[in-house]
Amino acid sequence: MKAMEGYLGFLGLLVSALLVGFLAVLFTLVWVLHYREGLGWDGGSQEFNWHPVLTITGFVFIQGLAIIVYRLPWTWKCSKLLMKFIHAGLNTVALILAIISLVAVFDFHNTKNIPNMYSLHSWIGLIAVIFYASQLLLGFLVFLLPCTPPALRAFLMPIHVYSGLLIFGTVIVTVLTGVTEKLIFTLKNPEYKTSPPEGIFVNTLGILILVFGAIIFWIVTRPQWKRPTEPNAKLLQPNGSTPEGTDYSMTGDFGNVDKSDEDSEAVARKRNLKLDEAGQRSTM
Amino acid sequence: MKAMEGYLGFLGLLVSALLVGFLAVLFTLVWVLHYREGLGWDGGSQEFNWHPVLTITGFVFIQGLAIIVYRLPWTWKCSKLLMKFIHAGLNTVALILAIISLVAVFDFHNTKNIPNMYSLHSWIGLIAVIFYASQLLLGFLVFLLPCTPPALRAFLMPIHVYSGLLIFGTVIVTVLTGVTEKLIFTLKNPEYKTSPPEGIFVNTLGILILVFGAIIFWIVTRPQWKRPTEPNAKLLQPNGSTPEGTDYSMTGDFGNVDKSDEDSEAVARKRNLKLDEAGQRSTM
Repeated sequence: MKAMEGYLGFLGLLVSALLVGFLAVLFTLVWVLHYREGLGWDGGSQEFNWHPVLTITGFVFIQGLAIIVYRLPWTWKCSKLLMKFIHAGLNTVALILAIISLVAVFDFHNTKNIPNMYSLHSWIGLIAVIFYASQLLLGFLVFLLPCTPPALRAFLMPIHVYSGLLIFGTVIVTVLTGVTEKLIFTLKNPEYKTSPPEGIFVNTLGILILVFGAIIFWIVTRPQWKRPTEPNAKLLQPNGSTPEGTDYSMTGDFGNVDKSDEDSEAVARKRNLKLDEAGQRSTM
Repeated sequence: MKAMEGYLGFLGLLVSALLVGFLAVLFTLVWVLHYREGLGWDGGSQEFNWHPVLTITGFVFIQGLAIIVYRLPWTWKCSKLLMKFIHAGLNTVALILAIISLVAVFDFHNTKNIPNMYSLHSWIGLIAVIFYASQLLLGFLVFLLPCTPPALRAFLMPIHVYSGLLIFGTVIVTVLTGVTEKLIFTLKNPEYKTSPPEGIFVNTLGILILVFGAIIFWIVTRPQWKRPTEPNAKLLQPNGSTPEGTDYSMTGDFGNVDKSDEDSEAVARKRNLKLDEAGQRSTM
């Protein structure tokens, strides 16, 4: 009964996240198609418009979904490896869209002789893309390559979770500074400060993005929606309890640390013992 | 030895947070005193300049410190009540500075006949201040008034922690959209896009604020720097273990959930038992 309530609560939140994220993408499309010049690849404003569309679709919406993918209760029966591929796959799609969106804006700047990389928005955005690409590469090397030692996975997992959330937050900062820039640059007649419909509409888009981030952050920090420990990982801790003490906590009960990688820390702590086959499987 | 290393690691992070936060405040002062018109209360630009100074000092730096105050290991011997007063006190100072900074910008707008509340920055900023004030009021009613039922404290603690961090992140979003606006509005000759020294300098300030947020977020999400359970709270769980299961996790091993309030959840779960004096003390 309690579990059912929790499940429905999760569904409600997931639907809200999807709805708000979808609305944000829709608002972005209305912004560029209705209020702005539409989409095209001409070096002009139509090409620029791919920048917000691809960033908000990929770097905000798809990244947000990638973050919570381990938390969907109906996937807990799926293999961990499959879920890792989905997580990595969604993040790869988001990165590709982010890179295309960067090409669009650099192209636009170069065609119009506008300097690149002068604004706070561009600085934070480039940092976010570089960190995101590094996170994806490191995540692949550490958590997907089967030969990575469990101890290394265990050490890096809390850092991976922390930096993932930090990058997601930084992307939201970047998007909202970008929206601010664009509104000031383009709303000239009538001016942004006279609150024209486009201003109100795009401010609302900004709020939607913030709300989407808030829902993702809530979902990913609720411990009850963590993917449960793999049964064979449990073999390493026969009494089923978690070891207590300062350094166990390093792998963190924080964010979407997923249990079987967390258990690989148990492996790490027992590295004086010979790693058995079960331990190897548990970290996949 | 391990504990000592952890302690030094914490000190290093704390010093970095203080240093980066202090640098951000210093950069803001240099911005308004050296590059801009200085400080004053004249309805003009000098009055506006209090807006970034007070926001970054109070709403970013002091709020950041308030968030991590329970995590300082040398305060774990101090009474919980004292720490709550320090936490609430710092947040109150931050709120007062944020409100004065709002008065400054509204005054400036009204004197110069610039409309209020038209920008995304103003929308998010006002939402942040309203949520921050509500969070402070609710925090006082729930966690400081001695008559609040432990069950209510336990229920609200994870929400308090989550919304505290969310508001802190939202404040950083607000500040960086505000910095973006201000740079575009004021850098006209030479323009922002020609990367004048003031542009580079204030972009760097933006990065410092982001780094400060990142350090605070790291400190507050490391489980090993959580304030330990109060000894008399432990009386309620004679075996010293944490109850496992879906709904215990609601109070979360997340953020700065402080242990004695977390234990008040144990109280809540045992509300069929008569609350003894130790239980009452443990939730103070």
